Amino acid sequence: MYRSNTCGELRITDVNKEVTLAGWVQTVRKFGAITFVDLRDRYGITQLLFSEELNPQLDENPLGREFVLQVKGTVAERSNKNKNIPTGDIELNVTGFTILNKSAVPPFTITDETDGGDDLRMKYRYLDLRRNAVKRNMELRYAVNRSTRNYLHENGFMDIETPFLIKSTPEGARDFVVPSRMNGGQFYALPQSPQTFKQLLMVSGYDRYYQIVKCFRDEDLRADRQPEFTQIDCEMSFVEQEDILNMFEGLVKQIFKDVKNIDYTDVVERMTWEDAMWNYGNDKPDIRYGMKIANLKKPSSVYTNKQDLASLINGADFKVFDDAETVLAIAVPGCSEYTRKQTDELTEWVKRPQIGMKGLVFIKCNADGTYKSSVDKFYSEERLKAIADAANAQKGDLVLILAGAEERTRKATSELRLEMGERLGLRKKDEFKLLWVLDFPLFEYAEDENRWVARHHPFTSPKPSDIGTMINNDPVITNAEKYLEHPYAGIKANAYDMVLNGNEIGGGSIRIYQRELQEKMFSALGMSEEEALHKFGFLLGAFEYGAPPHGGLAFGFDRLCAILGGSESIRDFIAFPKNNSGRDVMLDAPSSIDDKQLDELQIKLDVKNQVKSQN
Amino acid sequence: MYRSNTCGELRITDVNKEVTLAGWVQTVRKFGAITFVDLRDRYGITQLLFSEELNPQLDENPLGREFVLQVKGTVAERSNKNKNIPTGDIELNVTGFTILNKSAVPPFTITDETDGGDDLRMKYRYLDLRRNAVKRNMELRYAVNRSTRNYLHENGFMDIETPFLIKSTPEGARDFVVPSRMNGGQFYALPQSPQTFKQLLMVSGYDRYYQIVKCFRDEDLRADRQPEFTQIDCEMSFVEQEDILNMFEGLVKQIFKDVKNIDYTDVVERMTWEDAMWNYGNDKPDIRYGMKIANLKKPSSVYTNKQDLASLINGADFKVFDDAETVLAIAVPGCSEYTRKQTDELTEWVKRPQIGMKGLVFIKCNADGTYKSSVDKFYSEERLKAIADAANAQKGDLVLILAGAEERTRKATSELRLEMGERLGLRKKDEFKLLWVLDFPLFEYAEDENRWVARHHPFTSPKPSDIGTMINNDPVITNAEKYLEHPYAGIKANAYDMVLNGNEIGGGSIRIYQRELQEKMFSALGMSEEEALHKFGFLLGAFEYGAPPHGGLAFGFDRLCAILGGSESIRDFIAFPKNNSGRDVMLDAPSSIDDKQLDELQIKLDVKNQVKSQN
Repeated sequence: MYRSNTCGELRITDVNKEVTLAGWVQTVRKFGAITFVDLRDRYGITQLLFSEELNPQLDENPLGREFVLQVKGTVAERSNKNKNIPTGDIELNVTGFTILNKSAVPPFTITDETDGGDDLRMKYRYLDLRRNAVKRNMELRYAVNRSTRNYLHENGFMDIETPFLIKSTPEGARDFVVPSRMNGGQFYALPQSPQTFKQLLMVSGYDRYYQIVKCFRDEDLRADRQPEFTQIDCEMSFVEQEDILNMFEGLVKQIFKDVKNIDYTDVVERMTWEDAMWNYGNDKPDIRYGMKIANLKKPSSVYTNKQDLASLINGADFKVFDDAETVLAIAVPGCSEYTRKQTDELTEWVKRPQIGMKGLVFIKCNADGTYKSSVDKFYSEERLKAIADAANAQKGDLVLILAGAEERTRKATSELRLEMGERLGLRKKDEFKLLWVLDFPLFEYAEDENRWVARHHPFTSPKPSDIGTMINNDPVITNAEKYLEHPYAGIKANAYDMVLNGNEIGGGSIRIYQRELQEKMFSALGMSEEEALHKFGFLLGAFEYGAPPHGGLAFGFDRLCAILGGSESIRDFIAFPKNNSGRDVMLDAPSSIDDKQLDELQIKLDVKNQVKSQN
Repeated sequence: MYRSNTCGELRITDVNKEVTLAGWVQTVRKFGAITFVDLRDRYGITQLLFSEELNPQLDENPLGREFVLQVKGTVAERSNKNKNIPTGDIELNVTGFTILNKSAVPPFTITDETDGGDDLRMKYRYLDLRRNAVKRNMELRYAVNRSTRNYLHENGFMDIETPFLIKSTPEGARDFVVPSRMNGGQFYALPQSPQTFKQLLMVSGYDRYYQIVKCFRDEDLRADRQPEFTQIDCEMSFVEQEDILNMFEGLVKQIFKDVKNIDYTDVVERMTWEDAMWNYGNDKPDIRYGMKIANLKKPSSVYTNKQDLASLINGADFKVFDDAETVLAIAVPGCSEYTRKQTDELTEWVKRPQIGMKGLVFIKCNADGTYKSSVDKFYSEERLKAIADAANAQKGDLVLILAGAEERTRKATSELRLEMGERLGLRKKDEFKLLWVLDFPLFEYAEDENRWVARHHPFTSPKPSDIGTMINNDPVITNAEKYLEHPYAGIKANAYDMVLNGNEIGGGSIRIYQRELQEKMFSALGMSEEEALHKFGFLLGAFEYGAPPHGGLAFGFDRLCAILGGSESIRDFIAFPKNNSGRDVMLDAPSSIDDKQLDELQIKLDVKNQVKSQN
């Protein structure tokens, strides 16, 4: 060992001990003939005192930032204590030192607030990882990992590794593929998730499985997506939805306790997908605050079980509302005194292309009980009050109303709600609110192909009460315009998402375990019998030999860590992330490979769009 | 939940309880009007008793092997107890049952000794995994995983995930590569190990890192190799070899304790590579038994620090020994009375192509103190006794002597020693003996390219005392015949292998952490400066900014589990293994992919050897 102690370890009780430390030079400060050095390692910082006698040696071996140093010395009480660090009561009187390695001047400062830009920090990721802020993220990630494993172990789950070189069965996202040298012309795929394997493990009787595992999706990368990402992947046998919800809200509560020391004692709320969309315009609502949507007008066929409040706005000859498919309102607390400039700015905000609305109607619920709106021409004060009441507005609130086509308007209202929540400080970083969203539609309509696609994935079971509807109807959509009237549009999935502060952190479902129903699902998705057998023959086969009822879920591990760490960006929580072009700029990967490698793999390049060469 | 209890849970104290079980039908036995069913799940087997009243229901819903069954009933004491299973005191008086899923007749029996052949079991791996024997292996694997994580956690190691889509830097084995759709003509590689990343993490100050991680090598598969395999991968900073040896023999001892309940209190033996080769002919000797090699004659240049016993055999005009580069002997205990037939059989055994010797000389050390050999013509009884004594032979032993070229003869002697150990029952499955092998040569000579290759890998440090030799000499080999006289041939690595019962289960080294030395290493391996920068520029760069002294090791997780499970085959300890052609016969992967996929990836097939199509 190059050290007897770490740089975070020594205390006042260690005074007079002879110790050896090793670490990195954080700072060098000269006071007259004396030199102070802050020595840093993973565990902390210890102040070193080089007295005058060491000056000849220091002159010969000058210290610089990020040098790797081994020092021997005696622990001494500091005259000038530093209460901000655990070692702040002591310093080390250095008796001798060795420079273990020198350092060039780093391209950016190794401090919490660094002067390095994103690109520079990615290229020198090994230096960025030295910063305390980044190190804390890695430690948090490991703590979540550890807590997860402990909880699942105590609940009888087994970590069972599933293969990475599997079969390409593109359905949903694109696979990354791996050419096989030994089987010319054939390819492995990297798993998008271990979905079918964990189901096979249930068929094999393993009962409770988990893995913290890398998954791969070759998608066009939007901000904050990574081509490789990590899942907490779980599956259980002989369970119903209720068992899974209980087991995994338990997991997240345990993580809160272990990682954030938060006792999450609230009952975890549950909400149907339809309620989430109806009240929040979103299937992953942030329920840390209210501001629920008032549905003033709903389209004819999307929400079959909901009543709108159309009478409140009808008959006023206000063409914007009359022509709209959907009219939605939210009450923003305490904003009735917004100026014209402020309401204009909000109007511009909803008209941005990302939101895409044509305009914004507002009602000010003044403190004196009067109402003032941008549609006073069409609505009496009494009618304005009725609308505001429907939106649960209080005196002093500002009601915002959007109107237009259902999907866009609902999404815009949801975005507006989140924006106003943000502006009003209602989305607190240190407040955590869990929610289960349940009863998703099993199918989504793919307009371009005029067919059904699985909203979750093709292995999700319909609600037991909907199995008959699924089996007994032809999935073909004869009238594309009226797809919502097809019996399949109403089938609900036995699926659930876990939402934390407006982010989907996990999701799963009770699975299909009967061959007949699984075949019907494949055919509903437009797969021929032959294709289904080619791609998923092993699973259909497995269902012939005693498949148990089973279900599970997967958490997005990177996202979960980011939210717990109070960050929007998953990249900050990945040791070696890729950039938005899927490149590792530190390694400079991907890169070209030798002709010999291509030759052995029996493939040739066929490049149409030359990429700029990278350094 | 479909059950109130598992099939392994109920005891005599549960008698009269009303319970619900779910599981698989192991057996159905009729005794007159009564039906006994053994119901199996992950946790055990419970006997079910279907009384006469259930016969109409059973007639309507007949049970078969591997059906998935849910039963309600009352726990009752058995009249005929089964002491072999934990639930053997009770049975369940069934009051009602539901068939949750039927099963076709399985292609092989789900029993410890199955009638299924290898191929069939691989194709229906999900059924093979149901067998108790396989399940025990998976449980053992998880126990090793859990024990490893606990030990490393307690010792301050952090699990940090490293990327899977990295840069291709073929050096040693072939990389699997992944075409990048977003960067046409470029490829990622799958990691052969996280070697450079864990070193970067040390440069970043993470101090103690570990991962249980998949690695990938595209090698021609010999028996019991897998294209994807799992490593326990570890790295530490500010350590010397001694620290690593202590830390990781501690890990293996903990695993012994947790998984096998063995207190491994012996001091773990240590042996130099040269001693291992000299005494056992092998760098991973099985030291559960003696039978050490007596070196009767050694080649001129391989072992510089060893003295042979040439005087014992010289001057006898025995041409076989006189012409041989190497003559080696072992004493096999208690075999002096081998018949002519038996010694002939051994001679045939060493002449097999896998062993490749021309013949075998033996000396029988008879119980009466006389000596009898196959070379009596050349050696007096006195000389035979001297040779036998040198081999540590006792009365009743049989000395076996091989002669020929060094490498082949030493290997053959090692094989013969292992074979005789096996035949004599000295290699006991339930005896575990650990060993560190140290001081490996840093370089190996690659005859075909007349250059040095790294024996371990290019990041392994030479012994501190050999750094000067490495820096100050030109690596070029001018005289290929006398490569052993090149200064590089004598450089020892700061490397160590952990050996368990004759298997290498782990290995590692103290790493190079100085840019200059790392550059010298790359150049010694025949890499140009440009090539070194292209492939490993990020690492050389990292060494500029304060790299600490560090080292680590990796255990072969699959192999470790197999040995602990008493098996020769790692496949038995992998949930979904591939066959010897790298195929997953259950999935039928690898397989062809769509033209659309190829097109998006901007590659074309260029198949020279058409593979037979697979089903």
